[in-house]
Formats: sequence, structure tokens, C-alpha cells
Amino acid sequence: MSETYEEKAARLDAADGLAAYRAKFALDEETVYLDGNSLGALPAHVPARMAEVITREWGELRIRSWDESGWWTAPERIGDRIAPIVGAAAGQIVVGDSTSVNVFKAVVAGARLAGEGRDEILVDATTFPTDGYIAESAARLTGHRVVPVDPEDIAGAAGSRTALALVNHVDYRTGRLRDLPGTTAALHAAGALAVWDLCHSAGALPVGLDAHGVDLAVGCTYKYLNGGPGSPAYLYVAERHQAAFDSPLPGWNSHADPFAMTPGYRAAEGALRGRVGTPDILSMLALESALDVWDGVRIEDVRAKSLALTDFFLECVRAYVPGGRVTPVTPEAHAERGSQVALACPDAPAVMAELIGRGVVGDLRRPDVLRFGFTPLYVGFADAERAARILAEVLEKPAG
Amino acid sequence: MSETYEEKAARLDAADGLAAYRAKFALDEETVYLDGNSLGALPAHVPARMAEVITREWGELRIRSWDESGWWTAPERIGDRIAPIVGAAAGQIVVGDSTSVNVFKAVVAGARLAGEGRDEILVDATTFPTDGYIAESAARLTGHRVVPVDPEDIAGAAGSRTALALVNHVDYRTGRLRDLPGTTAALHAAGALAVWDLCHSAGALPVGLDAHGVDLAVGCTYKYLNGGPGSPAYLYVAERHQAAFDSPLPGWNSHADPFAMTPGYRAAEGALRGRVGTPDILSMLALESALDVWDGVRIEDVRAKSLALTDFFLECVRAYVPGGRVTPVTPEAHAERGSQVALACPDAPAVMAELIGRGVVGDLRRPDVLRFGFTPLYVGFADAERAARILAEVLEKPAG
Repeated sequence: MSETYEEKAARLDAADGLAAYRAKFALDEETVYLDGNSLGALPAHVPARMAEVITREWGELRIRSWDESGWWTAPERIGDRIAPIVGAAAGQIVVGDSTSVNVFKAVVAGARLAGEGRDEILVDATTFPTDGYIAESAARLTGHRVVPVDPEDIAGAAGSRTALALVNHVDYRTGRLRDLPGTTAALHAAGALAVWDLCHSAGALPVGLDAHGVDLAVGCTYKYLNGGPGSPAYLYVAERHQAAFDSPLPGWNSHADPFAMTPGYRAAEGALRGRVGTPDILSMLALESALDVWDGVRIEDVRAKSLALTDFFLECVRAYVPGGRVTPVTPEAHAERGSQVALACPDAPAVMAELIGRGVVGDLRRPDVLRFGFTPLYVGFADAERAARILAEVLEKPAG
Repeated sequence: MSETYEEKAARLDAADGLAAYRAKFALDEETVYLDGNSLGALPAHVPARMAEVITREWGELRIRSWDESGWWTAPERIGDRIAPIVGAAAGQIVVGDSTSVNVFKAVVAGARLAGEGRDEILVDATTFPTDGYIAESAARLTGHRVVPVDPEDIAGAAGSRTALALVNHVDYRTGRLRDLPGTTAALHAAGALAVWDLCHSAGALPVGLDAHGVDLAVGCTYKYLNGGPGSPAYLYVAERHQAAFDSPLPGWNSHADPFAMTPGYRAAEGALRGRVGTPDILSMLALESALDVWDGVRIEDVRAKSLALTDFFLECVRAYVPGGRVTPVTPEAHAERGSQVALACPDAPAVMAELIGRGVVGDLRRPDVLRFGFTPLYVGFADAERAARILAEVLEKPAG
């Protein structure tokens, strides 16, 4: 007598070493939240912390909080909190600005680091579009030329004219995980730099920035890091590049002595050279507080659970969903899979609307992709089974 | 029998039509807060609104809030709230990013708007330093050259090679108000664009962006607009320039159809062409909530009270403070005065530390400037008298 998928889910949840983390988040039992790869759930302790930030630090201490509440040093302090999650030693990450702005810093500064004679910027042609738009602008301003390339072909495309490649670690649409170590090594072999966008991998799987010799990286913090809507992004500058890192946005916060307020710019040492203007403290401290849920979490355990969750969800989808109604576009191979499952479905918009109406919250990528994000700190196997079961119910209705 | 300064303060406070606005802010009676030109005080209703944003909009609605809670349209909606305060019609301001990042957008896009053959960017040599640093970077990237100039000399300096001038409306250090209408007209007469930094004037005095034909402007929102620490800045693009506005930071939020996620960039219409990446919602909605205190406020009344406050503070300083201990660097003439009083003082660092210890919170600009900001919505005449009196007590001690 083989077990049902519901029984299997219960067994897997019972054995899940991360199951207790779910209680750290504000979640309701009516909803299966599979959109944490777009906006992470609220860590339950954040509202109290933010009330303190707003009422006490802003409301009572006011200007004194820049020193006394540690506001001024938040960008590098929070960067050091993110660092272990992405495999970076301290002192290489600063938090601030949006991902788009950090892509701009990374591409311009990366092109400058690469030096004269390297006039090509390879850009992941499948990337989240803002990376391509911003890279094009950076190239136009620095006299480079953008060459769109499939990430699988970067090793062959990189050559003596390549300054850098900008690649997404996990494709936002398909959920495909790219070969960060191999691609980085191939770029280095060609004398080029590797710039990685970690939006869809940081907090979902081991990145190993230092171990694999990544040069520059950017990422957002509102997906798997649960920093809140539009929480600040971050920039990683490998220590060996920091002394020559030449930012196109040398705001006063990146000055060696910002309060001297001298007319001449002199860059600070270290990662805080990537700072620009005054940091948005409310968003930043919400992120800092949200990162507390990572205390004691090993990213390897997150990855193991993520793969088990997406495996199990795909298994349930195959078992439950009428044949031919959806086609997985997320790779089967673990080495090529991020932490989401994308299913192509001809009537995806209507299906996702119905799913959300029934409490299964994924999202849509036009025209025909259903996206389901699996955030191992708060999604369980019963959630995966329930999502697949409700998806099957929705798909059993005639398409239209 | 002439009245004392305390009596005069009481009389002026009693006649102050804006006096009731003080109750809208979280302030304590022990402190005279004269640093609202650096970080505005907390509007008292903001904590409850932010608790709702965090707990309900993020915590319960999660991803649905991008539509249902109006997150996605916040940058232009809040821009339209700021517009009347700076004399702009709707549809010309977007909120987002830091002031430094907005200076970069304005200078690069302004240089492009100015067209070929105009290779000089005039920069206010007395400006807040980040403007100069960023303008230098923008000029380097666009093949322009920065010419530092005293704002009083811009009419003479602008010529056929001038693309634009970047000028602070109120000098952050001295509190000197620049001639925005005259300078803008002189730049236009030379065929150049006027780019104004409103950090120290927006919310303190009428700006009249539309009336005076300003081309581009930027400003922060955490000073006189009370948006909170590091709250997002804004960018004004005059309607006549929007169709040709060519942003150096064309992030996906400025795309005509962002959720099409197409590889090719196509700029949105209107002010939202100045958007870049995902807006930092927590900081942005705190700002939106904070702007509620402006309902029913006429900026002309704010200006009248501001001048009366700074006049009265200077009068009390002259009466109370031992001769020669401080030298006002803020102009006497109303037409040249912003909403702060700056006093040069040889031992300014020690004096400001002592003032803060005694509950009079101004700030220091190295090496020797004591800054006192007067925010008419919550500072009264009794505050001004008390600050001058305590300053005199501190200065009566031997310098050193």
C-alpha cells in the first residue's frame, strides 16, 4: 500500500529540520504563499522593531540617531550580515539603492577595471530586462558595446575584447540556475570580469562569491531575504578590486571624509566606496531586522530543502494535473534548478487569477508562465502538495 | 516700558497662524529642535500608518499590495503631492532614489537635452559637495567639462558652450538663498538649461518651478518635508522636456510596459521616465504619510513665518550674545535668506556639543559654523528666544 502524496508531505514535513522557521513569519493557514521569490513574507518580529525605529530613533532621538542608533554605518553593517549568506567575507558588500542602480555601478566600474582595449560587455540575453537596459546605458556612456549572449555560450563568446559579462545566477522566468563557477572561470581565462546578478539565488542556494572568485555582484533583498517591499539592494566588490573600484556614482556617502564636505572627491577605502547618497533608513533597518531569521541557518540546508520541495511539487504536478495542461520549463537537473518552478500554460493569466482566488499565490510572467517560488524558511511540503492539487482542480476546468 | 524678548516671543506665537501645526509632530518640551533642515521631526500620525503598511500591506496582502495598496504608482503619486509645495503642476515629479542619484539623472539628461556643441556644465562652487562630485562623474561620462562658478556669477559665466548649470537654491552651509528666477532667465538667455537642487528650500519657501521656467530639479524629502531618515528624493522634469528626457538610468520601472519584460527598452511617457528600479516602499509610504501635515498649508505663510523666526532669532542673538563671539553668515536681506541661520564661531564644535547637551539641537558644519534650522510648521518664537538665550549662556563661558 503506497502512501498518498498528502501522507508523503506529512512525512517530509515531520523530518524537516527547517520546519520551525515558519513560525518566525507572519503567515496565515488559508494561503499557500509561493511568491516569496517576488516579495518575501514578513518576519513576525519586524513590526515591533520598526515601531521602535520610527517612534524612538526618528521620533525622539531624531538627528542624534545617525550616530547613536547606528544609522550612518547601516549600509556596510547590513552588508556584512548578507555576506555569509552569499559566501563572502566581511567588508565586501554595501547595501543601498535599487538593483538597477547597483547594476549601473557594477557595469561601469567593471568596464573601467577591465581596462583599455576591452570594449565588449556580454549581457545575459535571457536576463531580467532591467539588467540589459542598464548595461546598454552604461555601455553607451563608457564607449563599450553590449553583446547579448546566451549564458550557456559565454565561455565561447568571451575573448580579448571582453571587458565583463553580466549574468543572472538564476533566470527570473524559467528558474534555471546558471553555472557560476564555470562561467566565472571561463571569463577569467579570457581576461574578463564576472558580474553576477544574485536576485533569484541569494538566500535560496549557496552562491560562493569568494570561493569562485566572482569580481562584482549585485542583488535585491526583498525576495528570499525578506527585507520588505523594495528594500535596498546590495553591491559586492571583491576585496582585490576595491582599491581600483571607480564608481560612476561617487556620492558624498562614499567619500573618505564625508563630513569634511570638501569640493574635491576622494574615495573611501573598501566596500563603502559603493555607497552613494544618504541611505533610506526605514527600508534599510527593516531589512536588517528581517535578516535576524537567518541566525543559525545554514544555506546548504536551505538548498537541500529547496530541491526537495521543488522535486516534490513537480512530482505532485505530474501525478495530479491532466496531461498536457502544463509544461515545466524549470530544468529537472538539480544543478540547473533555482528555487522556483515555472510551468508553461497556454491560459496562464486566467489560471493564475483562479489559483490566487483559491489561496495559492504564485505569479505570472507574460505571456504564458506560471511561477511558483519555494522559500524553504517558510514553505513546507504540505504547501507544495496543496498547491499542486488546487492547480489540478483549476486545470480540470475547460481552458478558456 | 518695552517688552522683553520672552514677552515678544509669546506675542508672536499667539498671533502665529501656523502655531497649531506643532501638535501634528512628535516633539518634547525639553528640546528646541533646530535641525529640521537636516532631519525633519516625526509627524505624530506616521507610526500608526507605518504599522498598517508593515502589518497589513506587507504582512497580510503581501504581493497583492503592489496593485491593491497602490505601491506600484507611489513614485508618481507622491510626486504629485510634492508638486504644489514647489510650484509645479502635476505630472512632472517622481519620487525615488537618493538626491545624488537624481543629480546624476538630471545632469546627464540635461547635458543631452542641451545638445551638441555645448560642452560645459556650470556647477555651483559653494554647493553641497555631492552635487559637484556627481556632476564631475556625469561630465566625465558624457564628454563634458565641469566649470565651478559662484552662483552670483552664473549670468556672466553662461555662454554658447554652456549646456546647463547645477545650482543649489539655498546654500547648505550659509543659508543663502539664490536668485532662482534671475539665474534661470540668464541661463535661458544663453541657451542653457537650469538644474536646481531644492534640498534646502522645498517646504521652506516658495520655489515656483513652473512659474520661473526651471528645466530640471532635484531635492530631498527628509528636511522640511519630514519624510523620515533618508526618505527618497525626487526629480522634476518640466513637461516640455519629458519627451526628449533621456535617462542614464533607464531601469525597468521607467519602461513603457514594464511587465512585458521585453529585451528592448522603450521609455514611458511623462515624469515616470525618471523612475529606475523597484521603489523602496517603506520609506516611500512614510514620506507619503508625512506629507499629510501639508494639507491646507500655504507655502507663502510658511515663508512669512520662516523669515519672522529667523529675524527674531538674529535679533535675540544680537541682544543676548556677548559681542564678537559669533558672526552671522546668513544674509540679512530677506531675498537672500533661506530658512536657517548660520553663525560662524571659532569654537563651534564645543559650543554645539554644549548646546545639544542643554536641549538646543542645531548642528555643526566644520570647521566653524553653527547651523540652526527653522521649520515653520513646528518651531515657534519661544523656541527661537530660548535657543538664543541658551546660546548666550554657553558663549559666556570662556572659549576653549
